[in-house]
Amino acid sequence: MSAPSTGTVAPHQHFDYPEQFASPFAPANGTSRPVDLAHVEILGGYWAELQEKNHTAHCEYWLERLGWISNFDHAAAGTIVGNREGREFSDSETYKLMEAMAWEIGRTGDEALNARFESLVDRVLPVQEPDGYLSTMFGREGQAPRYSDLEWGHELYCYGHLIQAGVARGRTVGRDRFVEMVVRVADHVCEVFGPDGIDNVCGHPEIETALAELARLTGDEKYRAQAELFIERRGHGRLKQIDFGQQYFQDDIPVRERKVMAGHAVRENYLLSGVVDVAVDGGDDELLRAAITTTRNTIAKRTYITGGQGSHHEGESFGQDFELPSDRAYSETCAGISSVQLNQRLLLATGSAEHAEVVERTLFNVVSAGIAADGKAFFYTNTLHQRDPGHVVPQDEPAFRATNSQRAPWYAVSCCPTNLTRTIASVGAYLASTSGDTLLLHQYADSRISPVLTNGSAVVRVSTSYPLDGLVAVEVEDLQISDDSAGFLLSLRVPAWAAGATVSVDGGSTMAAEVGYVNLSGLGKGSRVELMLPMAPRWTRADYRVDAVRGQVAVERGPLVYAMESVDLGGSVNTVAVDTTSAPEFDGEDVVVNATSVAVSDKPWPFGGGSTTLSRSGEARPVRLIPYAHWGNRGPSTMRVWLPEQR
Amino acid sequence: MSAPSTGTVAPHQHFDYPEQFASPFAPANGTSRPVDLAHVEILGGYWAELQEKNHTAHCEYWLERLGWISNFDHAAAGTIVGNREGREFSDSETYKLMEAMAWEIGRTGDEALNARFESLVDRVLPVQEPDGYLSTMFGREGQAPRYSDLEWGHELYCYGHLIQAGVARGRTVGRDRFVEMVVRVADHVCEVFGPDGIDNVCGHPEIETALAELARLTGDEKYRAQAELFIERRGHGRLKQIDFGQQYFQDDIPVRERKVMAGHAVRENYLLSGVVDVAVDGGDDELLRAAITTTRNTIAKRTYITGGQGSHHEGESFGQDFELPSDRAYSETCAGISSVQLNQRLLLATGSAEHAEVVERTLFNVVSAGIAADGKAFFYTNTLHQRDPGHVVPQDEPAFRATNSQRAPWYAVSCCPTNLTRTIASVGAYLASTSGDTLLLHQYADSRISPVLTNGSAVVRVSTSYPLDGLVAVEVEDLQISDDSAGFLLSLRVPAWAAGATVSVDGGSTMAAEVGYVNLSGLGKGSRVELMLPMAPRWTRADYRVDAVRGQVAVERGPLVYAMESVDLGGSVNTVAVDTTSAPEFDGEDVVVNATSVAVSDKPWPFGGGSTTLSRSGEARPVRLIPYAHWGNRGPSTMRVWLPEQR
Repeated sequence: MSAPSTGTVAPHQHFDYPEQFASPFAPANGTSRPVDLAHVEILGGYWAELQEKNHTAHCEYWLERLGWISNFDHAAAGTIVGNREGREFSDSETYKLMEAMAWEIGRTGDEALNARFESLVDRVLPVQEPDGYLSTMFGREGQAPRYSDLEWGHELYCYGHLIQAGVARGRTVGRDRFVEMVVRVADHVCEVFGPDGIDNVCGHPEIETALAELARLTGDEKYRAQAELFIERRGHGRLKQIDFGQQYFQDDIPVRERKVMAGHAVRENYLLSGVVDVAVDGGDDELLRAAITTTRNTIAKRTYITGGQGSHHEGESFGQDFELPSDRAYSETCAGISSVQLNQRLLLATGSAEHAEVVERTLFNVVSAGIAADGKAFFYTNTLHQRDPGHVVPQDEPAFRATNSQRAPWYAVSCCPTNLTRTIASVGAYLASTSGDTLLLHQYADSRISPVLTNGSAVVRVSTSYPLDGLVAVEVEDLQISDDSAGFLLSLRVPAWAAGATVSVDGGSTMAAEVGYVNLSGLGKGSRVELMLPMAPRWTRADYRVDAVRGQVAVERGPLVYAMESVDLGGSVNTVAVDTTSAPEFDGEDVVVNATSVAVSDKPWPFGGGSTTLSRSGEARPVRLIPYAHWGNRGPSTMRVWLPEQR
Repeated sequence: MSAPSTGTVAPHQHFDYPEQFASPFAPANGTSRPVDLAHVEILGGYWAELQEKNHTAHCEYWLERLGWISNFDHAAAGTIVGNREGREFSDSETYKLMEAMAWEIGRTGDEALNARFESLVDRVLPVQEPDGYLSTMFGREGQAPRYSDLEWGHELYCYGHLIQAGVARGRTVGRDRFVEMVVRVADHVCEVFGPDGIDNVCGHPEIETALAELARLTGDEKYRAQAELFIERRGHGRLKQIDFGQQYFQDDIPVRERKVMAGHAVRENYLLSGVVDVAVDGGDDELLRAAITTTRNTIAKRTYITGGQGSHHEGESFGQDFELPSDRAYSETCAGISSVQLNQRLLLATGSAEHAEVVERTLFNVVSAGIAADGKAFFYTNTLHQRDPGHVVPQDEPAFRATNSQRAPWYAVSCCPTNLTRTIASVGAYLASTSGDTLLLHQYADSRISPVLTNGSAVVRVSTSYPLDGLVAVEVEDLQISDDSAGFLLSLRVPAWAAGATVSVDGGSTMAAEVGYVNLSGLGKGSRVELMLPMAPRWTRADYRVDAVRGQVAVERGPLVYAMESVDLGGSVNTVAVDTTSAPEFDGEDVVVNATSVAVSDKPWPFGGGSTTLSRSGEARPVRLIPYAHWGNRGPSTMRVWLPEQR
């Protein structure tokens, strides 16, 4: 695996698309718009470390090893039948890797990586058929016909990821042969699934958001119209009935009538991302409201404290309101990623801080938990309570997606690793946005951000070790704005947990910073703003209706959810109780609580004799908790986020 | 649907098998043996009512309507390919119906029912191939080859149910053409899967217990040997890896090394039933101990308070120890039924009352809940917490097995209705057993039992309205025993919850009856024993490790688990809290507790603001609870067994 190196590929060329800027999402309308990734430099801290270990080479190694890339070679050579490897959606893994590579190339200008990208293009390109169709799975003699299995075939889903890779390439390097291939695929989709074409949708949403973004890249509205058509078609039972029910692929209720997310969690979030894209660009307020309502109800009632979504292993799906079991949390890494995509779109559309909260919580907890400390192993599901210590996972073979305390290097269904890789490569897109003259900072990372504003441009240096520390310093390093403007306008997000936050300018007196956004004006070059977010660890309790965690507390500090691991407790977390009479403490690195191990004995029948609570009598001792995202990095262990409370 | 009528089919003929007696299980060894169903007459009360509404005609109607019986006609006519209806295991539903019919015919002598049975034999018989093979699903041109899909094909599973039907027929009417057909099937299995045959097992255990019972019926040991071979083969990964893992069909760990049940709950219980059969008859103590350990650990750690088993919808499987979520309880009706089968076998083998406890708890709660008040609709899964009111189910079409608050008349996968039907038809087999001179009563029903003892015979009349009332009166109506014996010996089970039970003989002073079995001797003709079981409703709490019900209590009365339904609460059960400072009360019909509805409000984020407990401040009012088995009979409703406790 080659180390990244800067080379001759100039990052962020944007040629042929002068109106574009580098971002996975570039809505035409909304309360604010993203900052070009060419103008966001993550310099250190949490996200820089993740980007450091975000090895596209790891994904490429596994895709090669398992033959999922070779599928393209076989397809081109006419030898695919009988030689195809992987699941029906395995093409999409190559595309997600290519998207990740495209963002990385844009970010670093890495010539070697660009050569690897081009080498993949060499292998995918010959598979495209003259009419634009592209799949290793369907359409040849000995294979099922094209679009003969829309429920499970994933052809349009694969296109979606391919198109997103094309958008990434088009926005970083420009309109090259890969982007042109992608455009031909999209044209084929519009031809075959247009108003007079196949009157159906894909079992796995994803094409919608991809087509909407391609419309933004190319300026061709027909792609957005096709995305809209897919969205309007869905929810009327066009897809066949399956064991999981049509809810599984959101084909049970029309999008405009939806109130809360249901069915497969990843599908739902991808779908609604496309809904927001289409609604925002088309000015369709009714459609946008449906997405907002559906998302907000889901955040309020069907989301884990980690930001994870999906309460059911069966169907990888949402459960009912407040049905949020810790031990059976499915909380797929990809559901977290797609929720981040959706909520960022809603943040840009509405300006409502709650969506930035979700993005932050989800990125720091469930998305981050998906990646091992060394960046080379991944969680597919993200439980909040590991009852069993689990077992060591071989790091040289793919695993099932079954839960375990240990991350695997790859999976038989391996959507998550490539999804993480593309997300981390483009994570700078979530930090900031601009609204006219104002720069909004939504997520805090040690970074330099150089926004283009309606009245000029600025360079701001954000210095912080957040989330380790609550101090965020923002210095205006450069400012080029028109003379008649009211100085530089800065809007800083104050998270909902940060009551008591303060802000000061140029060492002046501190002012209360209310939860939401604190707006500062009149800043000039050299101005230094300090936002102080209170970072004392806190006990968190759940809504009365979350039965699964009744009588239990979680510990949070800043945006981080904490977890207790047996390696720190010195015993199984299944029999712990914590003393909540004193607050959890931060020791400079981790959080410490007072906890007791409860004496239990196995009885012939578990009902009638015992008690589900412990009175405050046991001798509590300090036990350290670690950020949830870091669990499972020290060998097999039991773990829990929600801790039974001594009474 | 014709009403049962007595006719010319003399019940319980047993001809050709003079050593046999009518029972689904007749072990050669053990601490006690079953009482011939010909000698058990249920006269009234709970089980008589269930037997009254146990309509075999309902099952036959649906099997006909859906074409699952017609599959046999098509198979015989050579038109099955392209015309086969139902799932791969649909043949077994006809066989389970035939077993139910056989027991019903034995019990009632119903001539019309016997004609229906024979009519089914007319249709199944022609499908048997010359070598004994019998399936509508495999082996013909245009079908997959015989035994080509042992993981999912269910051929041997179907045989298992066919053989059990044959045993029922053989033990009630005798060796007729149906029994001979069944013997040919079994001979075919021994030939094809014998020591020199296919070295594999069926993905769905069931054939093992069936073959062991056929050995008992016919006296031919080869069937037990074949069952033993299947058991020894299992657990070594002979079946292919599947998404659920080989644990799903118990092929991951050899039976002798098992410690706790895992994987698909019904498969596990059927398998272990066969294990006990083989171990008991073969005197294989090691094998028996493995079954005992596995079962007892499962009762202690992986069984719901209702007796239900299976915590996961995914794979219809057991969860980990103490992972017993109420709202996602799968608790398949068939898992309950198969657990009853297993525990009755262990009761007879070991004499340990705990297995009789499980039989009772499971029959009265999860098995009984499976059946609607009118006997014409069924639960497939048995949740302990219905969060959503659910919806009315059409009673004229089959449903998916998805959970709902309302029972369906039939299911796409419809194992449960026929399983219930055969179980209720033969439920008398669970009431009593004999050990030498002693009659043991395990389950109390208003009945007349006429055991054959080693020293003679007796006729006892059990008079009780149990479980409505705790008084069980046993009168010796007749006694024919050898002169030198110490009178009639009677052993009565005292359930674990019945501390404080008393017993008296002939109106004499009451004596304490310890939990377990109370043994009485010296009884003569006309003796009257009164067992008084205390029936005050009680609060029940769970082991500390059952996180799902922390801070919650259940209500039990006698062997019945109670449930709160929204129709009685006048609001959603999701926001209730009960006051446990005073005991629940029995009002002569139902149980009443004091409960409060907790005021909750939806917030944008459900963690941080609320509390999962309610301090004892709300005004509690009386709310009635109903037996769990009766829930869902009054239209859509929310329901819960475990009730949050005010503190």
